[in-house]
Formats: sequence, C-alpha cells, structure tokens
Amino acid sequence: MSKPIRQQAEWQQAAARVMARADVLAAISETPGALTRVYLSPQHLQANQQVALWMSQAGMTVWQDSVGNICGRYEGQQEGAPAILLGSHLDTVRNAGRYDGMLGVLTAIEVVHNLHQQGRHLEKAIEIVGFCDEEGTRFGITLLGSRGLTGTWPEGWLAQTDAQGISVAQAMVQAGLDPARISHAARRAEEFAAYLELHIEQGPCLEQEDLALGVVEAINGARRLNCCFTGEAGHAGTVPMSHRKDALAAAAEWMLRIETMTGERGGNLVATVGTLRLAPGAVNVIPGDVSLTLDIRGPANEPLDSLLNALLAEAQLIAARRQLQFSAETFYRISATACDSRLQQVLRDAVHAVQGRSLTLPSGAGHDAIAIAGRWPVGMLFVRCKGGVSHHPAESVTAEDVALALDAFSRAVFALEGLE
Amino acid sequence: MSKPIRQQAEWQQAAARVMARADVLAAISETPGALTRVYLSPQHLQANQQVALWMSQAGMTVWQDSVGNICGRYEGQQEGAPAILLGSHLDTVRNAGRYDGMLGVLTAIEVVHNLHQQGRHLEKAIEIVGFCDEEGTRFGITLLGSRGLTGTWPEGWLAQTDAQGISVAQAMVQAGLDPARISHAARRAEEFAAYLELHIEQGPCLEQEDLALGVVEAINGARRLNCCFTGEAGHAGTVPMSHRKDALAAAAEWMLRIETMTGERGGNLVATVGTLRLAPGAVNVIPGDVSLTLDIRGPANEPLDSLLNALLAEAQLIAARRQLQFSAETFYRISATACDSRLQQVLRDAVHAVQGRSLTLPSGAGHDAIAIAGRWPVGMLFVRCKGGVSHHPAESVTAEDVALALDAFSRAVFALEGLE
Repeated sequence: MSKPIRQQAEWQQAAARVMARADVLAAISETPGALTRVYLSPQHLQANQQVALWMSQAGMTVWQDSVGNICGRYEGQQEGAPAILLGSHLDTVRNAGRYDGMLGVLTAIEVVHNLHQQGRHLEKAIEIVGFCDEEGTRFGITLLGSRGLTGTWPEGWLAQTDAQGISVAQAMVQAGLDPARISHAARRAEEFAAYLELHIEQGPCLEQEDLALGVVEAINGARRLNCCFTGEAGHAGTVPMSHRKDALAAAAEWMLRIETMTGERGGNLVATVGTLRLAPGAVNVIPGDVSLTLDIRGPANEPLDSLLNALLAEAQLIAARRQLQFSAETFYRISATACDSRLQQVLRDAVHAVQGRSLTLPSGAGHDAIAIAGRWPVGMLFVRCKGGVSHHPAESVTAEDVALALDAFSRAVFALEGLE
Repeated sequence: MSKPIRQQAEWQQAAARVMARADVLAAISETPGALTRVYLSPQHLQANQQVALWMSQAGMTVWQDSVGNICGRYEGQQEGAPAILLGSHLDTVRNAGRYDGMLGVLTAIEVVHNLHQQGRHLEKAIEIVGFCDEEGTRFGITLLGSRGLTGTWPEGWLAQTDAQGISVAQAMVQAGLDPARISHAARRAEEFAAYLELHIEQGPCLEQEDLALGVVEAINGARRLNCCFTGEAGHAGTVPMSHRKDALAAAAEWMLRIETMTGERGGNLVATVGTLRLAPGAVNVIPGDVSLTLDIRGPANEPLDSLLNALLAEAQLIAARRQLQFSAETFYRISATACDSRLQQVLRDAVHAVQGRSLTLPSGAGHDAIAIAGRWPVGMLFVRCKGGVSHHPAESVTAEDVALALDAFSRAVFALEGLE
C-alpha cells in the first residue's frame, strides 16, 4: 500500500466541494427544477464557462474546442509532454440526475487541484475534458464530444436535426462554433498516454457488495432485436387448449428460457425483454401475434453472440414445436469495448489501497470511453450510486464515497507516471 | 336406427332453401356489404317480418311478442298442447357472419315445414322463436329476447342507453313496442316441454374431428380477471440477471403454468391471457409492472373454480419466490349452464343416426339457452363452421352439413314425442 497522497480530511473537504459543484451544475438547466442540458444549448455554453472557471482555479490552461468540449491542461515537468487524459461528459438526458457524467469531470478537477495546491507537476501533463454530448439527447446521435477528439465524426452528422428541425451545423453556428472547423478538435495519438474516466455505476452491483468503488473490465457490447411470434388468433371460449397456436404462450416459454439460459451462461451477460405488444389484444381472444424486443449485452463479443444465437435457435425450436412462426431482426448493434488491462491493474491497485479490496465489473451503459478506446488505452473507475438509479432525479452518491473515489483516482494518476 | 323421416334429397333441397334464406337475412343490414343488425333497429323489424312470412308459409300462426321476439306456433294434435320450443337469435354483432343465430331459426322453420307438407301434427305443438337480442350489440346487455320469455328482465334494463344516448324504453317506443308491456312476453312454465337450439359451433372441434354435428353438454361458465405483477424497473444493461425483479419474466413463468395446468386438468377447461401491458415499456428497461387479463372457462363450475384457485395460488408462489407482488381481481363471472341430460341423449341418438357417431362438447360461447335453462330443460345441437370462425364475415357452413343437421334436428323433435 503506497503512502497517503493527502490526509483523509482533505479528501473529505474536496468531496464536499465536488458535491456542491454538482449542485451548481444541476441548476444550469433549460427547465427549472428538472435537469436537462443538451448539446449546443445556452445551458451547455454556460456549464462550459462554469467548468472552465473551476479548471482555471485548479491551475489549468483552458479552452473550448471546435465541437464544444471544454478542455483544460495542467502541464507536466516539461511543457508539451504527453498527457494523461481525464474526463467525462457535461450533457444530460431529460429530467436527469446530477452525477452521471459531471462527477467524472468534477473529480478530475480535484485531482489536478490537489497537485496545484502542492505546486507539484508530474512527468506527464494532465488534461481534463468535459465532453459536450455523450447522451445524444438533442440530435439522437451519441458520443459527439469524444468522437470530436478522435476525429471520427461521420459525414452525415452536421445535417442531423433536432425535434425543431435545427441541424447540428445550424446549432453550432448559433452557439458560435464553426462547422467547417470540426476536425480541429481531433488530437494526435501521441498527445495522450491514457484515458481515465470516473463515472457512477448506474447499476446495483457495488451497493450490493457494500463497496464504494469498482473497476470496469469492459463496456458491454449490445444487440437489440425486434422479434415476432405468429400463431393463430381464436375464440378464448371455443378453441380447446390442445388446438391452440397461442403466440403469447410461445413468447412466454421463450422469455422464461431467455432468463434461464442467460443466467446459466454467467460471464456478466444480461438479456431483457422490455417491450411486448400482442394482437388482436382482447380479453376473450387468443393472441395470434406477439411482437417483443430483446436487448442483450455482455462485456465480450464472442460470448454475447454465442448466447444470442442460442436464444434465437431456442425461439425457433419453440415455434416449430408449437407450429408457429418466429422471426427476428437486429436493429442495433454495438461491439463490446475492453478496458486496457494495464489501466485496469492500476485502478485495481488504487481501489484496493483505499477500500481494502477491489471489484471488477462490466459497464452496462455506454460511455465516452467507447469512442476514446478507438485511439487511446482507456480505464474506468465506478462509484456506487444509490439503488443503482440513474437517468433520474433520484440519482444519488454520498460525499464519503466521493472522498474515497478522489483518493483512488489520484493514486491511479500518480501510478501512471511509472508507465510508459 | 330409426327409419328415415324424409328422403335425403328432400333435406338437401331444404338445406339449399336455408342457405338462400340466410343470404336474404344477411342483406337486411344497417351497413351495406357488412352485416350489422341490432335490437329495435328498422332492420330488426324488417328481419322479423321476413321470418314471420317464412313461418306462415310453414303453416305457423305468427306474432311478435312484447319485447320484439318473432314467434310462431304449429299446433299439436290437440289445440293448446304444451310445445317443444325451437329457436335462436336474429340479431348480430357488428360486421357479423350470417349463420350465428339465424341458422337455428331457419332450420327450425324447415323442421315445421316438413311436418306441414305432410299434413302431419305431433302430439306436442312446436313453437319457434327468433330472439330479438342475444348479442347485446346495441345496449351492452345480453339475452334480452330470451329473458323476455322467462320474464326476468332486470329493473334497470329499460333505462340502459345505446351509444347515441337512446334508452331501451325510447327505442321500444320508436319501434312500436310498449315498454309497460314487457312482462307480457313471459311464458308460463307449463307452456313448453323443452327447448332445442341449433347453432354453429364457433370453434374448431367438429372440423378437427371431421364431423358435421355435435351435441352440447354445457354452456361454459366463465371468469375474467385483471391481474398484476409488480416488480422493479431497472436498466437493462446494468442490473445483473441475479438481481432483477422482472415483472415480465414472472408473468411469463405464470403464463406457461396457466397453459400447462389447464391442459393437464382436462375436462374441457380453457384459459387464455388475451391482453398484456407492461411498464415502463422501453427496449432498454426491465419491466417493473405487468398487467394482464385471465379468461378461464369450463362446462362445470366446481372444476372451473378449482383450476382458477390453483392458478392464482401458483401466481402467488411465483411472485413470492421472485420477491414480487401479485394481485388479481375478478371483473366478470358467469355460471356454467348444463344441458338437460335427457335432451342430450335424444340429440346424441339423432346425431348418431345421421352421421354414424356423435361427439359431445361444451359450448365456449354464450347462447339464449343460458336464459331459457332458468325455466325449461335445454338441449343444443352444434353444426360445424369453417375454421371455427364466427363473429366475422368469413363465417361459413356447408349446405351438406345443414342437410344432415335438418335430418338430425327433425329426428330429435320427433323423439321428444316419446318424452313426458
């Protein structure tokens, strides 16, 4: 166990500041009393200004890049050294919680603030980025900020429109940004040595393990499918059980198998039927058609696809045995993103140092780290959130957990000094 | 096997007349090209007139009773003798088929026509009734015609209104009926010895047994319930399978048990989940609440209630094991109506005589016989309909089956001569 970087009381003071600043950011919303802050809105620019002020106070050079990310740099011992990049996003879903994204930016500022207070510079520089759009709330496209840094904005994004018909390009101009200069946000590979993102878990695992912190092994890959069982509608009173082709009974059998098979595979795989519609849909009519969605996720692509194939084969078997039809169509697919193994180890050591043991878990939700992983090694530190709730005003973390997180986050950044 | 009452060719001729008359009645509709004929409409009165004409041609005395049933009497050997009552209904659902109800009236007329042609009178009289409202399409209350005969109209029925706000009482006046004289439709118990109703099966059993005719053992009792599983909504990506309280998975487990347990009990019990709604209802959210309906039916009340209790206990077990809540509320309940055992035997003998074997089956749908059974012994003869389809323009019977049905129906009526 390394020596303490700072006294516990000081981390508690820093954590209190993080909590207060999260409240300040939560008040920057397009709707009073309910946090909504979307890309290129006046609130986006206002939040950037606020975060820029805090970065400056932590001794950082600050700029807003050409896609609207707010960026700060704390130099290393030699100017122009490669940087450790820390960050998360500052945009929100509608009626959001106040920690999803923001906690990663605010804690990163405290890590730098700590160095600055001690007048200390590491060999590497530290940069912090408050990404401008991870959620995709306004334009329905996600990771705009982090894909600005990787220089991988697709052609069509500028033409994408919001609910009012305003395109990304128009909104950029309104916000004082130049759509022709998007590529200027891209950073060269050699500028960053690593990316670390601190984020709330958005799930119940840490809470159930009674741990404040955990290390992410991978950001889950996901597949989403529209599925359909087609049987035969019939009179609920006149068709005997043995003669039915009940699409809902078939779907029920499959849903139960989805639950069982996914649980049996382990490996942090999850599968969810979140919507189900049936037709004709009357009390006294046997359902002839059932449409349902399957959402399936896991930390590695191969086991995920293997499970999915097994589930689809099972559906076909069930349909065939019952003389029904089954069809499925994938409408969304994202690969799993593995976290860098060295960074996982660095984070595990830091977490172990502050809470006595570490837990490795997958991230069920997406993060800017997905985009960043395309160019730089990524690591993620999770902080327990109450009841696993996020994307909701009830989202909650404790100042005690944030103090521990700051300690671990700082230790990890210091440990990266020892890596190439 | 009794001797033929009539040559097969003559029954075929009569069946052709029944088919043609069903087409004539199908054209008496409030909507051209789609059969809809509701209580106290101009089409109701027009159909009554048409049927009255056919009854007269079959040698019957004809009258419209005080609730709007069209009635005919063919005297026995002595005037005023107790009658065998034959009948079914002349009203329809919206966009209906042309045989549900009408076939029972038209075939009854042929049974009498046959006697009349031969100048023959039985010991008992024969009466035929074309009931005015079995479906309840207009006012949402059912069996108005048959409950006119039993004299059991509830107090409130006259005030019941249709979609335009017209009450039953107002509609009766508009149709030339006197709401104050409803009780005059009631018949004394001693006036009828038995009630026989011929009806299409509205189910697939006869078709699957390759039989034209079957005998009804009972009109199913039914219970309908609103049921609810309450678990915990959650993020489809972040909540591990082992920590979920997925209301849809619980409902799936129960639905599968409903199917299995109902099938295992046998006894012509059927159970159907015809509607299901879930909340929140998003692709990436674990369902926290599922509301579903259960429709359960069977030919006898005790096994029906026993199954229902077992299913509800099973739901509670599933909910408890999964740490969810389950609740259920019965919103509709109708007792099973047993057909008279002697009449069943008479019908079985007649069916056996014309098709070599007989099949006894329950009626999954309701019929005027339910009301009539409150005062007189009832028997029902089912005729195969294509694909089990009814309440739909595709409702279909064959002239061959109708010819067989006429033969069996006549044999049964003749056989009733031998009963007290």
